[in-house]
Amino acid sequence: MTSCFPDDPIYRGFDAPGRVEANVFDLEVEGRVPPELDGTFFRVAPDPQWPPMLGHDIFFNGDGMVCAFRFKDGRVDFTSRYAQTDKFVAERQARKALYGAYRNPYTDDPSVAGSIRSTANTNVIVHHGLLLALKEDSPPVAMRPDTLETIGNYRFGDKMTSETFTAHPKVDPVSGELIAFGYSAKGVATSDLAYYVIDRHGEVVHEAWFTAPRAASIHDFAVTENYVVFPVGSLEIETERLKAGKPAFVWRPDVEQIYGVLPRRGNAEDMRWFTVPTNGFQGHTINAWDDGHKVYVDMPMLNDNAFWFYPDENGHAPHPSTLKQTMTRWIFDLSSNSVTPQMDIIPAPMGEFPHIDERYATRPYRHAFLAVIDPTAPYDFQRCGPPSVNAFLNGLAHVDMTTGASRRWLPGPTSTVQEPVFAPRSPDSPEGDGYVIALVNRLDEMRSDLVVLDAQHIDEGPVATIRLPLRLRNGLHGNWVPSSAMRPPVPA
Amino acid sequence: MTSCFPDDPIYRGFDAPGRVEANVFDLEVEGRVPPELDGTFFRVAPDPQWPPMLGHDIFFNGDGMVCAFRFKDGRVDFTSRYAQTDKFVAERQARKALYGAYRNPYTDDPSVAGSIRSTANTNVIVHHGLLLALKEDSPPVAMRPDTLETIGNYRFGDKMTSETFTAHPKVDPVSGELIAFGYSAKGVATSDLAYYVIDRHGEVVHEAWFTAPRAASIHDFAVTENYVVFPVGSLEIETERLKAGKPAFVWRPDVEQIYGVLPRRGNAEDMRWFTVPTNGFQGHTINAWDDGHKVYVDMPMLNDNAFWFYPDENGHAPHPSTLKQTMTRWIFDLSSNSVTPQMDIIPAPMGEFPHIDERYATRPYRHAFLAVIDPTAPYDFQRCGPPSVNAFLNGLAHVDMTTGASRRWLPGPTSTVQEPVFAPRSPDSPEGDGYVIALVNRLDEMRSDLVVLDAQHIDEGPVATIRLPLRLRNGLHGNWVPSSAMRPPVPA
Repeated sequence: MTSCFPDDPIYRGFDAPGRVEANVFDLEVEGRVPPELDGTFFRVAPDPQWPPMLGHDIFFNGDGMVCAFRFKDGRVDFTSRYAQTDKFVAERQARKALYGAYRNPYTDDPSVAGSIRSTANTNVIVHHGLLLALKEDSPPVAMRPDTLETIGNYRFGDKMTSETFTAHPKVDPVSGELIAFGYSAKGVATSDLAYYVIDRHGEVVHEAWFTAPRAASIHDFAVTENYVVFPVGSLEIETERLKAGKPAFVWRPDVEQIYGVLPRRGNAEDMRWFTVPTNGFQGHTINAWDDGHKVYVDMPMLNDNAFWFYPDENGHAPHPSTLKQTMTRWIFDLSSNSVTPQMDIIPAPMGEFPHIDERYATRPYRHAFLAVIDPTAPYDFQRCGPPSVNAFLNGLAHVDMTTGASRRWLPGPTSTVQEPVFAPRSPDSPEGDGYVIALVNRLDEMRSDLVVLDAQHIDEGPVATIRLPLRLRNGLHGNWVPSSAMRPPVPA
Repeated sequence: MTSCFPDDPIYRGFDAPGRVEANVFDLEVEGRVPPELDGTFFRVAPDPQWPPMLGHDIFFNGDGMVCAFRFKDGRVDFTSRYAQTDKFVAERQARKALYGAYRNPYTDDPSVAGSIRSTANTNVIVHHGLLLALKEDSPPVAMRPDTLETIGNYRFGDKMTSETFTAHPKVDPVSGELIAFGYSAKGVATSDLAYYVIDRHGEVVHEAWFTAPRAASIHDFAVTENYVVFPVGSLEIETERLKAGKPAFVWRPDVEQIYGVLPRRGNAEDMRWFTVPTNGFQGHTINAWDDGHKVYVDMPMLNDNAFWFYPDENGHAPHPSTLKQTMTRWIFDLSSNSVTPQMDIIPAPMGEFPHIDERYATRPYRHAFLAVIDPTAPYDFQRCGPPSVNAFLNGLAHVDMTTGASRRWLPGPTSTVQEPVFAPRSPDSPEGDGYVIALVNRLDEMRSDLVVLDAQHIDEGPVATIRLPLRLRNGLHGNWVPSSAMRPPVPA
């Protein structure tokens, strides 16, 4: 480069630019990595290749850097590679940013007009042998799970015609189907919603299109054995705002919450809309299930907008420290005429980035694992500076979702955490019997650890700490993929 | 691994294990990288792949990690790769150390008996299109300079039969010859010395064998237009000590210094031995030249043993802080009967890791560039801990070797430096007109910078600071290689 990244908190300290594509073989281990862990922890982080075209940016808008931690026989190998998106390739060629503001194609260099804007930076999953790097404004980017080599934009054999694909698809553990959707499915600021059921071989077996009540973000959704639930957010996107160069999303403070409930193989006429009269900010879906009559969806809810970079029309957004989180169980009663879900509260700790035992996805479950915020835990500001965007995530918790009871582990006053995933001890071990795996940011050493904790004894601290000689800046989502799912890629 | 490296200073802080093979494209730059810099800065560091077999080790005994910083059009790309030595490959296969103590094959696992022990970690040069990774106890390891892929052990078309090859060969800038030697050339603890002249195409054109007066280390040597000089060190190596598991070298405090002077195309009978009655520890050769009658060799000299890990027979070694350094110009008068060189003193600052304008190697010269020790410069022990093995190298200096006058740049109290190299501004710019390039260890950030300074104005500080998102632990030697020397490899 002929410059540096701007002096801005999102590029500072532990979130200073990474941009490192590396292999580190057989990482150092304190403790003992359980030999039954045979698989890969994949995760992705925004890691901008170039300084922002407009001189400033938001945390979400960085090129996806995919990391793989391969576990076998008590040892762990590390690989990181950029997802070679169309954006990444074009910008590498130009040696500078060509894409402008987050989600705003009107700010792009004319040379990339009409192209796919994906940064592929939000989640990475493996399905039918392919690693899919996901960004909700674009189709998936397929990569080889073994080498992290990029294959390219992926449309499930050209059957997926939606312009967008969620970063939070769900896999039904019984059928192996990948259940997914795209919002703004006909392009930026459209209210079209596309819904897909993809079988275990990567074939699209069901598709339905809808019009959402507003052109708003739908970051995550919920899937049960028989239904899907679309939480239509309160962050709206409008073409006129984009053309005027305003932030991509605007918070609508006085709207109701909207949830659409659809049978798994339903069509537009089958959608049933529910509303909640008070506004709220939906967090990530923890899990969901149905009993045939009622649909249960667990998610943390905030009472107001969490995204200060998307204020309301008057430029106002609440300070994050004033937000109140409620662990919520929405109950949609399909056997009645109600248009409002029941809201149960689970007395769980405040946190986000949830994962469950994926063998229980879409079904009744008990165990959840979160990155939590313990405001009483001391944080060494003097030594470590302000925590970065993932801010005060300073612990890992195991929550019993039937009672809200939890156990937690805190990494200490000079560390913060990233999203935990769960790996079962064996294919048929009981629910939640296994290991929690998460990155820990050692801010005092500017280095990352990957910790492995016994999921049912998380408070006892790590059974293994895998020491990286690198700093992995804060990321978004990832998944544990057992070796059995890592068959050679099946080109569609 | 199923463990960590031992808790030992050589693996701590800034020298914590690296083991990162990475690519970072187009590094961040503060300032401006001169666009006339078109070439690669190669360097190598010991970077042990596995914890030491014996539970402890010395800094010199780590697998060579080669780094390349490619400069072009004001931009810099970074690559690091292990030299895939026989040792590296065998130990990766075994996933543990198989080679024992430094330079002591009697401590190795039986499975590697008789193999080449090279760590290829001391220096990297490019000659006849090949990158040669050098360790003085073994033949070179050839690598591709463009990709850092390892080709293998290299013997210049099997013409080099010495078992060892110096890490400090010299290139005659006029003839393009590579002038080299090996000590302990018939194997560990032998006093055989092999001498080679290799032409610009990689062909051995002259070879001579000698017996050195003692089986001692000869780490560096000197080459002029017409002569070569072999400083036979005072660190001896003996088979019986090795078999007894003692440190590989023992300091002989009461011996004289020995220098062998040989015509460039001389044979055993042409060697002329000089001695200095007081002992001394030879530092790296800065440069050397002759006027047909006298041979001049510049090097820093210490009054006693610098390697505390190789004490004398009684286990005594001076504390490094008690050593006295003298910038010495040895003058060997071949036109007289003298057996002792004249010793001139150049009032230059204390330092090591010298480089010169390589276009003036073997010829009269003026400019030298060193890593220096400024004992008055404050070092923040509280914040940064003890400096590592390269200890108090806390500045970069430009020395006028005709007067000893110098200019220096200090990177500050939370940084130390690594070896500087010199890159000419253009192929025909005057001597010393160009840039000094060196790694700076930012101990407070646990991160490395690569600085570029105007060689004639080094005190003005960097014209460019190239920010790495990685920590590169302290290394040994490297070189600037202009693009013109990077033609495709010529396999021998």
